[in-house]
Amino acid sequence: MRLTDLGEFGAITRLIEMSTRQRMAPGSVDKRGFKLLVDAGDDTAAWHTEVGTELFTTDTMVEGVHFTRETTPWDDLGWKVMAANISDIASMGGDPMFALVTLGMPAETEIEDLDSLYDGMLDLGGRYGVAIVGGDMVRSPTAFITVGLTGVCAGAPMQRSTAKAGDLVAVTGYLGSSAGGLEILLGDFSAPGEPERQLKHAHRRPEPCVSQGATLIQHGVRTAMDISDGLVDDLSKLCQASGVSATLEAQKIPAHPALRHVFPQRYLDLALNGGEDYQLIFVAPAGLMAKVLPALPPPAGVIGELIAGEAGRVTVVDCETGEPVSAASAGWDHFR
Amino acid sequence: MRLTDLGEFGAITRLIEMSTRQRMAPGSVDKRGFKLLVDAGDDTAAWHTEVGTELFTTDTMVEGVHFTRETTPWDDLGWKVMAANISDIASMGGDPMFALVTLGMPAETEIEDLDSLYDGMLDLGGRYGVAIVGGDMVRSPTAFITVGLTGVCAGAPMQRSTAKAGDLVAVTGYLGSSAGGLEILLGDFSAPGEPERQLKHAHRRPEPCVSQGATLIQHGVRTAMDISDGLVDDLSKLCQASGVSATLEAQKIPAHPALRHVFPQRYLDLALNGGEDYQLIFVAPAGLMAKVLPALPPPAGVIGELIAGEAGRVTVVDCETGEPVSAASAGWDHFR
Repeated sequence: MRLTDLGEFGAITRLIEMSTRQRMAPGSVDKRGFKLLVDAGDDTAAWHTEVGTELFTTDTMVEGVHFTRETTPWDDLGWKVMAANISDIASMGGDPMFALVTLGMPAETEIEDLDSLYDGMLDLGGRYGVAIVGGDMVRSPTAFITVGLTGVCAGAPMQRSTAKAGDLVAVTGYLGSSAGGLEILLGDFSAPGEPERQLKHAHRRPEPCVSQGATLIQHGVRTAMDISDGLVDDLSKLCQASGVSATLEAQKIPAHPALRHVFPQRYLDLALNGGEDYQLIFVAPAGLMAKVLPALPPPAGVIGELIAGEAGRVTVVDCETGEPVSAASAGWDHFR
Repeated sequence: MRLTDLGEFGAITRLIEMSTRQRMAPGSVDKRGFKLLVDAGDDTAAWHTEVGTELFTTDTMVEGVHFTRETTPWDDLGWKVMAANISDIASMGGDPMFALVTLGMPAETEIEDLDSLYDGMLDLGGRYGVAIVGGDMVRSPTAFITVGLTGVCAGAPMQRSTAKAGDLVAVTGYLGSSAGGLEILLGDFSAPGEPERQLKHAHRRPEPCVSQGATLIQHGVRTAMDISDGLVDDLSKLCQASGVSATLEAQKIPAHPALRHVFPQRYLDLALNGGEDYQLIFVAPAGLMAKVLPALPPPAGVIGELIAGEAGRVTVVDCETGEPVSAASAGWDHFR
């Protein structure tokens, strides 16, 4: 059996099972006061210490798979790989801290390009207090960048597995803008205007939701994840982890005016299925939701609810007709 | 200017400077009680917490660069990438803890091979209490495996930069066996005997020196690093970091009897320049060395001393003739 048969998430599930079979559940791994709280399968691992809860995540970008040099200059690449990692920390309600950077690079790579890559990483990282404290540099015929990042949060981090039927589902901001920007970069928009520029910027310089994550955890929200692969796909993973279904209302999905302008027929599909916006999905009972939403910047808002049903199923309905909307693609799987 | 012009260590130095320019030295980064102790450029980064000193390292293996499927079966590959990471923690005097595993794999990779890879990682990791708590899986035309690993130690970790002229230089065990084993695996040893088998095992299943690292730090040794690229090359990095030169006595370099048997003409060159044995170099004043050596398993022993001189220079002399021995190659640089 090959990776392409089992798919990314089938393979990950299998390897997580192997990794945890020989030891017990989170809480039982307790090494010198570092007690595992969140095991493989969430946005980050987490362990409790007397100082605070420490978080640990990693994200990788591979040339030809996650980026091409045509659409992603080196400084954008640095920004984006750092954004993906900081976003994982943000989704747990944490504050990013120390990073290790691994560069796999062909020997003919220009030093100036590595400088630009680091400029991008340091630019975004510096805004969130990330210190790059080491890493590894290796030769590789395929260029890749891996960042490992630690973070810290007070108390229990937000997880994917803590949602319940009846909870409301909300997002922190506009979705689909990054995917729209990528289409513009790949396409032939010969006279781009301000909306096109805004969407390209959303693709090139996504902002992780660190302050929103902190607001959520301070208000007692227990369930969140970041949207890296697409709303429907990532919400489906959250529902899978919590054993529930979700119903979303199409008209409530926040799509930026620029996205609606440039893609008047397709903005909903892009908002539902486009990745790399790095907004947060969060889930809470109605009472808590009413308290936390006013503390978040617009357009944070409720987009649907969780219901009892098949674990992982996400349905999008048109609020006016009550009919299901086709959510088209099912997100991003590296191996299918 | 290209990577191949500047070389791996030139490029790393440049990127470390970029990373630290915008912030101050170790000690000055203090985020919520996590205070940076060891910055980029050592075997691991380290930060102080009230619970203990936490360590953070990463190591990568790339197909065609660090391994080929001909000489390294998947389970050996898993063992070796975990060994490289655990060894970095051991060299600081630490105990390894939580790991994140990134797999970059072609879509046609066999699931059974990934199982074997994890078997190897879990086999070695399990012996040292490592818990794999997450990671990332991405498609890549070139297969690569990156492990990020945390660890913990009591008090200040051993570093590369704390050595002084007059200190003695010692190693924990036999050197060159892994390089000898690789030559056997690559060559045509049609009727291999017990010595060949021992060397191949040394290449395929290196043991990180976790207990030796703990013994060293308990006795107050302040300077150590692991030998991943070769004795002369790695000692040169230690001398560079501490601003000293070193003189080694050729006859004192520990070479396993099997290495002397299979490579009677070349064992010294292999012991001086062969990588991936994952023994530790450690440095201490004579009085401390006399106390710590009896606490270590054989053949740990002194191989030379540090002297004032050009930072990073390592000279190997024949004890009988007093003449310098050519140390031949200068270790492993990915990009030269």
